[in-house]
Amino acid sequence: MSTSEPLDSAIRDLVIANRILARENVIDGFGHVSMRHPLNPERFLLSRSRSPEVVTRDDIMEFELDGTLVSQDHRRPYAERFIHGAIYMARPDVNAATHHHAHSVIPFSLTDEPLQPVFHMASVMGTEVPVWDSQNEFGDTNMLVDTLEMGQSLARHLGHRQAVLLRGHGAVCAGPSLQAVCMISIYMKDNAELILKTLPLGKPAALSPGEVERTAAMLLSAMPLARAWEYWTSRAGFQGI
Amino acid sequence: MSTSEPLDSAIRDLVIANRILARENVIDGFGHVSMRHPLNPERFLLSRSRSPEVVTRDDIMEFELDGTLVSQDHRRPYAERFIHGAIYMARPDVNAATHHHAHSVIPFSLTDEPLQPVFHMASVMGTEVPVWDSQNEFGDTNMLVDTLEMGQSLARHLGHRQAVLLRGHGAVCAGPSLQAVCMISIYMKDNAELILKTLPLGKPAALSPGEVERTAAMLLSAMPLARAWEYWTSRAGFQGI
Amino acid sequence: MSTSEPLDSAIRDLVIANRILARENVIDGFGHVSMRHPLNPERFLLSRSRSPEVVTRDDIMEFELDGTLVSQDHRRPYAERFIHGAIYMARPDVNAATHHHAHSVIPFSLTDEPLQPVFHMASVMGTEVPVWDSQNEFGDTNMLVDTLEMGQSLARHLGHRQAVLLRGHGAVCAGPSLQAVCMISIYMKDNAELILKTLPLGKPAALSPGEVERTAAMLLSAMPLARAWEYWTSRAGFQGI
Amino acid sequence: MSTSEPLDSAIRDLVIANRILARENVIDGFGHVSMRHPLNPERFLLSRSRSPEVVTRDDIMEFELDGTLVSQDHRRPYAERFIHGAIYMARPDVNAATHHHAHSVIPFSLTDEPLQPVFHMASVMGTEVPVWDSQNEFGDTNMLVDTLEMGQSLARHLGHRQAVLLRGHGAVCAGPSLQAVCMISIYMKDNAELILKTLPLGKPAALSPGEVERTAAMLLSAMPLARAWEYWTSRAGFQGI
Repeated sequence: MSTSEPLDSAIRDLVIANRILARENVIDGFGHVSMRHPLNPERFLLSRSRSPEVVTRDDIMEFELDGTLVSQDHRRPYAERFIHGAIYMARPDVNAATHHHAHSVIPFSLTDEPLQPVFHMASVMGTEVPVWDSQNEFGDTNMLVDTLEMGQSLARHLGHRQAVLLRGHGAVCAGPSLQAVCMISIYMKDNAELILKTLPLGKPAALSPGEVERTAAMLLSAMPLARAWEYWTSRAGFQGI
Repeated sequence: MSTSEPLDSAIRDLVIANRILARENVIDGFGHVSMRHPLNPERFLLSRSRSPEVVTRDDIMEFELDGTLVSQDHRRPYAERFIHGAIYMARPDVNAATHHHAHSVIPFSLTDEPLQPVFHMASVMGTEVPVWDSQNEFGDTNMLVDTLEMGQSLARHLGHRQAVLLRGHGAVCAGPSLQAVCMISIYMKDNAELILKTLPLGKPAALSPGEVERTAAMLLSAMPLARAWEYWTSRAGFQGI
Repeated sequence: MSTSEPLDSAIRDLVIANRILARENVIDGFGHVSMRHPLNPERFLLSRSRSPEVVTRDDIMEFELDGTLVSQDHRRPYAERFIHGAIYMARPDVNAATHHHAHSVIPFSLTDEPLQPVFHMASVMGTEVPVWDSQNEFGDTNMLVDTLEMGQSLARHLGHRQAVLLRGHGAVCAGPSLQAVCMISIYMKDNAELILKTLPLGKPAALSPGEVERTAAMLLSAMPLARAWEYWTSRAGFQGI
Repeated sequence: MSTSEPLDSAIRDLVIANRILARENVIDGFGHVSMRHPLNPERFLLSRSRSPEVVTRDDIMEFELDGTLVSQDHRRPYAERFIHGAIYMARPDVNAATHHHAHSVIPFSLTDEPLQPVFHMASVMGTEVPVWDSQNEFGDTNMLVDTLEMGQSLARHLGHRQAVLLRGHGAVCAGPSLQAVCMISIYMKDNAELILKTLPLGKPAALSPGEVERTAAMLLSAMPLARAWEYWTSRAGFQGI
């Protein structure tokens, strides 16, 4: 992959995002994070098929939005790269995406209980998170979103939102930047845990739509994102950034 | 910031308290801890806007009680510094305060179940923890306590107590010293977890008011506080203190 | 134990599997993992009686399928080695097995709630996990599976499946390779946690039999197993593998 | 304290037991572990008032069974040392004791649900764990067992058993050796967590009395205790023991 200064910096951030999502227990051995190419919006960057905890610069590959690998590379890409490409096609405002199986969010894909923000940090995931069920259009599958057609079905379900659940599988998050999509992914996970913890006490009250809108706008601004990024980066073991 | 020996020592303790609250999972990327200025009760010390886990001596700033930054400093302070100033104004007995989002306490801000001490260590948070709801006086907001007026509303709700919950947001704790406010914050979190764990078995019995009073007086005395501080400091990675 | 290159490599993998299962909280001080001998299918390899977290190459012993120690060795073998031998006798397709007490699976041995895969990664444990109760055939015991007769009773209960629960005790997992049996053991544990977390929301929907079959076939293929093994190995502290 | 070879070795084990109970999350900043003096059964060894995680050889003190400090030492002993002395007085078979606040056991002190062994490792705590309530004899207190009279009341409640719960406070465990009392303390905590996890599925079946008796006798024998001690010691950071 030919490099340049903005691309170098983007790849560095993408490696850090991989490590952050592993460290914060959003992604275990399986799952991934991508970003739109900083110089060419018709392409995106994603690791080869490897666990985010061990991803390095050299693992980052470049793809067309339809999932075609750009460079000559004998290494295997993720089978589910179509999730990312389909979202970048449908959503010009999205520049980074995650696919993860954070355990606390999966219960909300298996029952009728909606995943709504109940504490302020989770406002970044939006007022509602729909559930996409691969059975509806595709019947019994191996549960991977491994074709462009499936990716586009999922992207339609995501719509204009920040996150969508996959029944019996996990979630996809989308945001304007790597920093933002990490915040959405991490606090979505925390919010799900909070609801599960609260239920023995009773049904938790969700934030009002006005609170969600104002709080999300504040949290997704430069200062909170920079503060969170510094914190996550330090915890993931990167020094002096 | 001009320094002196008592101030040097206070700043050192404030940095340690930041690291302790991060290590003990009371504060994640967001939240803060402050102390009243050791030489001037009309001022308080608080980090610049940075996650407690990475705060260092150089990050500590000095504020008037109304939240005005004393020194010339181009760095951003926490938007919610007004929480701290308003409490120091209203409560001459308080010399340290925390604002945190410990996940286990938030459920008690979302339901009618009261947060009461059910094990002896939690007696330090007092017999009851009221809930402050920003909606009541301020309607839809970005959920930050980012004006002196909001801080003073919250301080009135805290009253003479050691802790108050913020609906859908977190908690504020206040104590006579950094050691005490760390103990209040940590065991408040543990007590909330205990109640949540107990509910599948049945409603837990709270300590009697007499037990709370006597146990809190004992735990907030010099020996237990020194023992806990040594333990937390060691766990936070500070050696030879 | 005489060694050769395939055996050396197998022993190395077995030590790594021990450390992985400790690191991933599948096995604590008690429990074990074995593999069929790579050169002699009538024998199997298993550590001497020692916690997996501290097992080294030198601890690996060689056994006949009936549990007889092959080499002259004064060290104590696990009392429950019969679990492994009995499964290798009954199941030519099985080349690796674990016995563990992962806490999250034990509740399913104590109630009538079945342990079924509710998220895709757990498809590897199969559509159902039966419960073996030592009381039924053996009455009050010390709860160890410490005779060949008990091992064979357990192996009959396992049947053609990937996992079986032991009432009030733990579980046994069996797979075609060490990589596979680690994946089965780890995601069985995660799946049990998921169901427990979901119940306050309602009964979770299990994957369809068709989904389980297709997803398991995909996950137990070379690429996902290699990716998971690299991840677990790195987390267990082995470098440069 | 005058030393000798058996005493040196005992003190070394007592320091390790302190670190083990901290590492395994049985004891946080508060709680303690003691042993009967190896050369004088009318005395016991216990750290000065310090968190077990940071206890060293030099912290170990020697006491009469009534709690009197033997040596000239200006340092503060634990206020609750009477727990240990009273048990050693009443129980010649007991040579080691812990007092801890493991969070998972406290719910069983706050409700009528009995703490019974539901998995084999917890057989070591015995078939039942009674609850001692300081209110019954002593009314409102600071909840510490800080007199010999209170220690003796607690010891009577413990009776011939391995463990007793203290309402709203924690637990006391007693065993024939440090290794045994660590096993009792750790698996009592795990068993309590297991019951709490199981309740959403339904009431867990306890082990039969015959199973408890036979399994406990097996687990408290030399080989399992040595295996567990090696594992805990390694996790607590002691090398080459």
